[in-house]
Amino acid sequence: MSSTSTSPIVDIHTHMYPPSYISLLSKRTTVPYIYQPSDPTADPRLIILESDDDPSKPKESRGRPVDSTYSSFDKKREFMSIHGISCSVISLANPWLDFLDPEIALSTAVAINDDLENECAKNNSSSEHQGLKLYAFGTLPLSAPAKDIVSEIHRLKFLPHMKGVIMGTTGLGQGLDDPALNDVYAALASTGTIVFLHPHYGLPAEAFGGPSVVSKTGHVLPLALGFPLETTIAVSRMYLAGVWDQHPKLEFLLAHSGGTLPFLAGRLESCVAHEREFIANGGKTQGPERSIWDVLQNNIYLDAVIYGKPGLKAAIEAAGSVDRVMFGTDHPFFPPLGEEGGKWLSVESNKTVINGALSQDDQSIKKILGGNAVRVLGLEL
Amino acid sequence: MSSTSTSPIVDIHTHMYPPSYISLLSKRTTVPYIYQPSDPTADPRLIILESDDDPSKPKESRGRPVDSTYSSFDKKREFMSIHGISCSVISLANPWLDFLDPEIALSTAVAINDDLENECAKNNSSSEHQGLKLYAFGTLPLSAPAKDIVSEIHRLKFLPHMKGVIMGTTGLGQGLDDPALNDVYAALASTGTIVFLHPHYGLPAEAFGGPSVVSKTGHVLPLALGFPLETTIAVSRMYLAGVWDQHPKLEFLLAHSGGTLPFLAGRLESCVAHEREFIANGGKTQGPERSIWDVLQNNIYLDAVIYGKPGLKAAIEAAGSVDRVMFGTDHPFFPPLGEEGGKWLSVESNKTVINGALSQDDQSIKKILGGNAVRVLGLEL
Repeated sequence: MSSTSTSPIVDIHTHMYPPSYISLLSKRTTVPYIYQPSDPTADPRLIILESDDDPSKPKESRGRPVDSTYSSFDKKREFMSIHGISCSVISLANPWLDFLDPEIALSTAVAINDDLENECAKNNSSSEHQGLKLYAFGTLPLSAPAKDIVSEIHRLKFLPHMKGVIMGTTGLGQGLDDPALNDVYAALASTGTIVFLHPHYGLPAEAFGGPSVVSKTGHVLPLALGFPLETTIAVSRMYLAGVWDQHPKLEFLLAHSGGTLPFLAGRLESCVAHEREFIANGGKTQGPERSIWDVLQNNIYLDAVIYGKPGLKAAIEAAGSVDRVMFGTDHPFFPPLGEEGGKWLSVESNKTVINGALSQDDQSIKKILGGNAVRVLGLEL
Repeated sequence: MSSTSTSPIVDIHTHMYPPSYISLLSKRTTVPYIYQPSDPTADPRLIILESDDDPSKPKESRGRPVDSTYSSFDKKREFMSIHGISCSVISLANPWLDFLDPEIALSTAVAINDDLENECAKNNSSSEHQGLKLYAFGTLPLSAPAKDIVSEIHRLKFLPHMKGVIMGTTGLGQGLDDPALNDVYAALASTGTIVFLHPHYGLPAEAFGGPSVVSKTGHVLPLALGFPLETTIAVSRMYLAGVWDQHPKLEFLLAHSGGTLPFLAGRLESCVAHEREFIANGGKTQGPERSIWDVLQNNIYLDAVIYGKPGLKAAIEAAGSVDRVMFGTDHPFFPPLGEEGGKWLSVESNKTVINGALSQDDQSIKKILGGNAVRVLGLEL
């Protein structure tokens, strides 16, 4: 293990489908669902994207194989050990609880959050796990009434291993600029609960030229482009609607280094400055009051899951400081193909990028690899 | 004027709708079209995006006002003088000739290309214009049969002020990864014709949450996000389809610093490396042979129309060198609101970004502001 007590590696972007969630998905037959092939030795298939549920393919080959890596805490610890990760802040993988009937949303969220809390508590108090620490982001029952969502936000503050919440881009169903989210945002801000914003829905296939174009290259277009563009659109809508004007203490951690926001922030700023519809320019629509750079540098954290030096450097500069960017792995997604047991390319490439982007600055590397997460999320290692 | 003979400023992203094109659009009533309000003192309205043609608005307020700035060479020179620009490489603005009936596409393209050639020749041989030089990118008749497109590519090489072609993202109607474009790409590569790739179609409104979401903030979402994401998707499709494997000498200049490709190139590379469908990973689909970084650093140039330092630095690093990034203005779009006659915020902000990103390196600043364009496009100033 390369981590030491003075420079821990903390993974803030690492997912699980806990057993209770796997069980929930296995009972479903529409996206999201898990399909058990008739061959009992074959891994079940996890179909979580509409674009994966291609009726022209047999169900055996839709989506991706889901083995115990997705649900086993032992597998998570094994992965951590292989990569020298001292601490993981686990989050439910997409699509979280977005699809639940409202009546069962709150009770399901409570059960899953309690499960994660208990597993983290059990792990951290055990002497068996070589000092590997686990924390988690909770999941909100977003299909439940707003008062239930707010009550779960407050309840999570009493669970000592819960260090924020993970959320997709749909909010209550109308996106993150929905005024109906105001009470939720107010509760998140007043409790100091950081929101880990993660994509799931991607872009409509038409954005890529239609389903036949998308299917030509497997998951590449939805994952490489659809995911980060979804995040960029969601955050831009929040910004344009003045969510951060109204909730100046609301903090978001953006997956995949902000989608593409660090690269496009200047263009967004310029388009706002030149938009005739905005009141500041004599128009009829209230535009955002704060600059996007101000929001990036005071309300937004970015993970370092970007796989490229130019992007990581842009993320650090857009965030205003190396103090606002945090290492992550996206485990258990992007496993190595055709080999097992060794280090993962998807993890090592991000470590290489971090080291390369900050080659002359060990202190900054340590901050991104772990120090920032410890400070921002209040982790005890 | 701040430019001198030793450090010219060249604008490679600057549009016009020549009078013949304005006349073409004025005769149309569906997008793209120009609408003349009943008030004869009001400027005509230019409606070029589907999202601008909102039937719930009166035609007088759809799209944007189009004054002589869009069609007048004198106005172009005036703009150049105000901003110290020595040379402009003019291109037809979107949507070019994508919408033409095939029968008139070639003759219209020839007429417009000849017009531009003649205006540039007249300007450059005149002693009246304080040494301001004009060149142009031609426009291809993409709705015509491929042999006509190829013939126009070859004809343009005999027009001495034509320094490449501008193209949108639809190609022959099916995108830029369409195998039917092979002859066109072969002709572009063999003639050394650089393609200035520019967005127009944006993303479907559903990508932003639907038309009601888009209309809340004027043009911001389609322009700030839709345009660069369209470019990113189009180039990624070309890359994934192996266009640059098949045409290793094909050169593209990407508008808006590549959309978001410099930021997402690492993620694209990682998703390709982890895609089970690709032959390299035991799948059935031929993936790209060259790395995206190789293509970025050998086949792609980027403009510097990005309005933000983090993005410009990422563009320079992704392009592999400061030698592959070129200043542009996007004139006559993004004019100052509420003031006239002075310097444009949209231009000065990009100059500030270039100077700030390369503050210690005058030679690199000069390259981006003009030296690269002179070298790459073969301009005589």
